[in-house]
Amino acid sequence: MSNGLLGNNKIVQVGIIVRDIEKTAAEYAEFFGIEKSGAMLTDPIEKAETEYKGKPSEARAKLAFMDFGSVQVELIEPDEHPSTWREFLDEHGEGIHHVAFFIKGMKEKVMTLTGKGFAVDQTGEYTGGRYAYINTREKLKTMIELLEND
Amino acid sequence: MSNGLLGNNKIVQVGIIVRDIEKTAAEYAEFFGIEKSGAMLTDPIEKAETEYKGKPSEARAKLAFMDFGSVQVELIEPDEHPSTWREFLDEHGEGIHHVAFFIKGMKEKVMTLTGKGFAVDQTGEYTGGRYAYINTREKLKTMIELLEND
Repeated sequence: MSNGLLGNNKIVQVGIIVRDIEKTAAEYAEFFGIEKSGAMLTDPIEKAETEYKGKPSEARAKLAFMDFGSVQVELIEPDEHPSTWREFLDEHGEGIHHVAFFIKGMKEKVMTLTGKGFAVDQTGEYTGGRYAYINTREKLKTMIELLEND
Repeated sequence: MSNGLLGNNKIVQVGIIVRDIEKTAAEYAEFFGIEKSGAMLTDPIEKAETEYKGKPSEARAKLAFMDFGSVQVELIEPDEHPSTWREFLDEHGEGIHHVAFFIKGMKEKVMTLTGKGFAVDQTGEYTGGRYAYINTREKLKTMIELLEND
């Protein structure tokens, strides 16, 4: 716990945007001597309720997760629909997109952050929880992701 | 420990290149409710023995460190001399430059990595240890830093 805007300062994930998740997951496996992580597809809009910059988006991504100590590396291969993932790939190319934090009380946290002037670039649901990408790029030099598990 | 090229898969640091370290350190302090981290200057070439792409470089940087759980965030403000930090700022702008791992046996690890075709972009000494930035961008989509403390 902390007195900051998230109530939690523990980085739990580093999210990396890639063009070819199978290829990059294989490179990670070889480099770090770990089993190759299988990629999963995010849920369709009906289930994920994905919103990008305040509008519903059909965007989906392939995701692969690997443990690196207490931090998870998440590889993300975006599709062509509008999303924070696609935007990053188009503007910056492949690279680290965000660091993530577990939070409690998504609605309240998002209200606090928008009240402080931060934009909520994307939100969605996943089985057992929900996420929000907060555009902290100007001030923190990276996006952050809030994760809330039920 | 692991069977990978580093012998260690624990991410201990996320390194972020910034233009104005005092300003960004203040933003981090406010956002996360932590004390503002003071910036320190890396050692001059005589002590740091900095090499960038195989040649000695006068490059120095201002650094600030903050703890985020088991991971440290390192803010890095490069000077104008040639370095991996300056190159990143010029080519990509501000953002996450590397993730770091503690290793043992720097010379052997660097030999193993160069033998696998990875370039060593920058090396240097600091009080109590040494670092090497390995250019894993093409395969891992980020640079990695090896840290060896005595």
